Amino acid sequence: MFKKRGISVEKELTNVLPENLKGKVVTADEAASWIEDGMTLGLSGFTRAGDAKAVPLALVERAKTNPLKVNVYTGASLGSDIDKKMSEQGLIAKRIPYQTDNTIRKKINEGEVLYIDQHLSHTAELIRAGVLPEVDYAIVEAVAITEDGMIVPTTSVGNSPIFVQKAKNVIVELNTNSPKELIGVHDIYLPEKQGERNPVPLTKSGDRIGTIGIPVELDKIKGIVLTTKTDSPAAIVQPDEETQTMANHLMAFLRKEIEAGRLDETLAPLQIGIGSVANAVLHGMLDSEFKDLEVYSEVLQDSVFDLIDAGKVKVASATSITLSEEKGKEVYGNLEKYKDKLILRPQEISNYPEIVRRLGTISINTALEVDIYGNVNSTHVSGTKMMNGIGGSGDFARNARLTVFVTKSLAKGGDISSVVPMVSHVDHTEHDVDVIVTEQGYADLRGLAPRERAELIIENCAHPLYKDQLRDYYYKALARGGQTPHILEKAFSFHINFAKNGTMLEKTPVTN
Amino acid sequence: MFKKRGISVEKELTNVLPENLKGKVVTADEAASWIEDGMTLGLSGFTRAGDAKAVPLALVERAKTNPLKVNVYTGASLGSDIDKKMSEQGLIAKRIPYQTDNTIRKKINEGEVLYIDQHLSHTAELIRAGVLPEVDYAIVEAVAITEDGMIVPTTSVGNSPIFVQKAKNVIVELNTNSPKELIGVHDIYLPEKQGERNPVPLTKSGDRIGTIGIPVELDKIKGIVLTTKTDSPAAIVQPDEETQTMANHLMAFLRKEIEAGRLDETLAPLQIGIGSVANAVLHGMLDSEFKDLEVYSEVLQDSVFDLIDAGKVKVASATSITLSEEKGKEVYGNLEKYKDKLILRPQEISNYPEIVRRLGTISINTALEVDIYGNVNSTHVSGTKMMNGIGGSGDFARNARLTVFVTKSLAKGGDISSVVPMVSHVDHTEHDVDVIVTEQGYADLRGLAPRERAELIIENCAHPLYKDQLRDYYYKALARGGQTPHILEKAFSFHINFAKNGTMLEKTPVTN
Ligand SMILES: CC(C)(COP(=O)(O)OP(=O)(O)OC[C@H]1O[C@@H](n2cnc3c(N)ncnc32)[C@H](O)[C@@H]1OP(=O)(O)O)[C@@H](O)C(=O)NCCC(=O)NCCS
Ligand SMILES: CC(C)(COP(=O)(O)OP(=O)(O)OC[C@H]1O[C@@H](n2cnc3c(N)ncnc32)[C@H](O)[C@@H]1OP(=O)(O)O)[C@@H](O)C(=O)NCCC(=O)NCCS
Repeated sequence: MFKKRGISVEKELTNVLPENLKGKVVTADEAASWIEDGMTLGLSGFTRAGDAKAVPLALVERAKTNPLKVNVYTGASLGSDIDKKMSEQGLIAKRIPYQTDNTIRKKINEGEVLYIDQHLSHTAELIRAGVLPEVDYAIVEAVAITEDGMIVPTTSVGNSPIFVQKAKNVIVELNTNSPKELIGVHDIYLPEKQGERNPVPLTKSGDRIGTIGIPVELDKIKGIVLTTKTDSPAAIVQPDEETQTMANHLMAFLRKEIEAGRLDETLAPLQIGIGSVANAVLHGMLDSEFKDLEVYSEVLQDSVFDLIDAGKVKVASATSITLSEEKGKEVYGNLEKYKDKLILRPQEISNYPEIVRRLGTISINTALEVDIYGNVNSTHVSGTKMMNGIGGSGDFARNARLTVFVTKSLAKGGDISSVVPMVSHVDHTEHDVDVIVTEQGYADLRGLAPRERAELIIENCAHPLYKDQLRDYYYKALARGGQTPHILEKAFSFHINFAKNGTMLEKTPVTN
Repeated sequence: MFKKRGISVEKELTNVLPENLKGKVVTADEAASWIEDGMTLGLSGFTRAGDAKAVPLALVERAKTNPLKVNVYTGASLGSDIDKKMSEQGLIAKRIPYQTDNTIRKKINEGEVLYIDQHLSHTAELIRAGVLPEVDYAIVEAVAITEDGMIVPTTSVGNSPIFVQKAKNVIVELNTNSPKELIGVHDIYLPEKQGERNPVPLTKSGDRIGTIGIPVELDKIKGIVLTTKTDSPAAIVQPDEETQTMANHLMAFLRKEIEAGRLDETLAPLQIGIGSVANAVLHGMLDSEFKDLEVYSEVLQDSVFDLIDAGKVKVASATSITLSEEKGKEVYGNLEKYKDKLILRPQEISNYPEIVRRLGTISINTALEVDIYGNVNSTHVSGTKMMNGIGGSGDFARNARLTVFVTKSLAKGGDISSVVPMVSHVDHTEHDVDVIVTEQGYADLRGLAPRERAELIIENCAHPLYKDQLRDYYYKALARGGQTPHILEKAFSFHINFAKNGTMLEKTPVTN
């Protein structure tokens, strides 16, 4: 779809805004004034990286006197409190496909914001096919634009290519504070429409198959806003004893796979979700025997760069880079050092089922709760309240070589067991879950029938506090029979207990 | 992986068993005597088509005096009462990945047979990677073998290529009653192992990318059994008024897609599950404006051949052909007429996510029950008892252009509502379900948040008998809030009612 077009890095370094486009420069306020009630915006931004910042915030200001509602599509979560401020201002009608902000989460759960929680590789497909309402304005952050119309994104690619391709108008936030060395890191490739589509010609994590920026007809660029605001830094989640133990269990499992001859020390392309366990797992690999690792993931966090520094990771592909303040300084101050190992792709490609299955990633994501048969809930607290969203976990879980879900066995100081009889919401079915890891141990569910899974999950993953209660449920269900024994009247007894009594623990301990 | 190797059809027609292999001919009893307790068998067969028949039945006889247990892998369901007889005889330890037989279903639900209900494109992957126990004997039905070792399957391909490739030993059931015109219909291609895999070079439903048979080293063929038994015919499910109405709703939806410019009259490659609605939908297309249709499916049933006869279908790709007795005579008596339009592939390829997403199939499968938020249960009655299995529905649902689930709004004469507050088992999550069709109407869920979905599903799809009860649940749940409002204490009240009172209907009708 996009023909490959070269770009001279040197030229761009000194000229991120070519002469012929200078006339398009406007203020953020002016750009925000173009947006009308009922419109749909496609904002760049993925896990707080590379988000359009100036125009959305100017829109928030404008809405204070001039209320309006818009649909907001993004790559994933936004930084700079944009979701917070926009939703506080009542600006957002529909929000697609992922968020992580407290304020908008509340509005979503109150029904004020309609939230479509979507596999992150699907949004582009639905926009391409004209299923979702058309994007009126794509607003994307860039480190450079070329004179023939190539927008070079900053720290994330996300859905920006499809927004730019399909939007009626494009507004570029040219961030003059972005490191110019980002130019050349991106690899922009979009599949053709379904039915006329070719195989995506990527067979290794490090393959480059596209252009270094997002091509756009110059006419479509309605305005260029000059900005300097940097990304919101990631909160650093230090490994604690439990996440460290989980990382150790996971590494023990990987070593067993090596022993069985199914993996070698280079493992397989790693996809690792964000958060504390992900961080601990990657840190655990620092002084392990694993080597020449490849990362084919959504997001690159601090730990990936630590592994690059240690010579453990030879290539890292994702759709965004989200770093802590400290690590950000280090990485962006020395980008040349990392550049030949980094690739940022559209999220449609970083998460594309075709590629995930072909490469056979090892995918490690976090669950809120798992059930005794291996179904996973990653999104809904007690089956109703949205936490963040499914994100890319489903894109990977269904197609990975090894699908691992990690969760601490307890939450809320022990009042919640993360292993329950039946998950209160299903994001990943038993068919798509290979291994569950808690700080108690791991359960390798591959090739096991539900009754075998239940025993293993209860014994290896549940916290001792809850084992008897879980066994009690399971054995009573078993007495009723079935492929997947359940007692529907009691399936949510843990959750109901928690709602009523503030704990999932039964008052009188059950013994068998 | 397999190099392309030609085969002279004329030669094979007169010589389905070459000289150099004649010495391998044995009786079914002899072949069965090689099988030892604890072994794993890979049997050909997919929706009662192309199954190995003689050796499994000989094994059943042998087991009567000489009890043993084996693991049984297949493509999908078997005919000739093989699952029934094997399980009655206590022969089956583990059964993978799909079945539809009453007797084995009972044993599964009693826990006597361990059943792994698996996405049909996944089994080959797990065998290739050495995750599932190794196949000791691949037993596959063939219409011919070539002198250099190419096994030409009969009416299904299923998992036979991976069984043959990975098994320690191969037994061929050479069915001399199979129509020789089947030679040339198959297209055998297996992906390389993950990590070393190339894109599957298929971009149109009709592309041929492999060989006409399954290559095998001659040494691995331990025996050839000559057979004559034909496939068990499919039961004919005639459309009734309700399935006809469902087909009409679905066609009305497809016409809206054409109006919106998202499809044209050739639609998109169709994947249609088996059963009465599938049949009705395809029959409905006979005198419609739809034309030049492509089928990219798992199974080809009677109706696909009717559509070919009517000049409506230009190419039909699947992994098996399952026909009624009558249609079977017609088709196999005139195979030359259909041959250039037919392709049978390994189920790993007919269901491969990469291809399904690339082609953008329209996938129509049947649900047992759906919930008000669009989650689908296709396998577990009341969350516990296995019906058949997920089959290929998940391979398609996640990746299709349009994922449609059909179900009658009532079951068991009205005592069951197929639209429930929360499905008792989740096979397909809300993220993967685009459209729900019942005889009441259809709900197009694309681009809708859960609260919008609930209203639409209740109004358009639920039966009037249950609408008030569903609304009552929904509004009460809504009062509690959440992205996906639920009342966990009542989420399965419909099912619990049915178990207690024989009906999901509440005694005192609820009004709002
Ligand atoms: C599941 C997910 C929410 C876990 O997040 P995390 O920050 O790693 O996990 P934490 O253990 O810190 O838990 C987060 C919160 O959920 C709570 N929680 C954890 N398990 C819970 C459970 N079973 N029930 C209720 N609440 C639970 C924690 O107490 C914590 O609450 P707090 O914020 O009030 O302290 C997060 O990983 C996610 O959104 N995943 C889905 C998307 C995804 O997988 N993306 C990966 C990239 S593909
Ligand atoms: C879901 C599935 C079982 C429906 O089968 P079907 O024959 O088309 O549907 P029917 O309406 O005849 O229902 C079959 C049985 O389930 C019962 N049933 C239907 N809905 C039910 C519900 N909500 N609760 C309990 N029982 C239900 C019917 O009464 C019937 O029972 P019976 O055999 O005792 O008469 C079947 O399509 C299936 O196995 N699907 C999963 C695999 C798949 O999708 N493969 C497609 C190829 S990819």
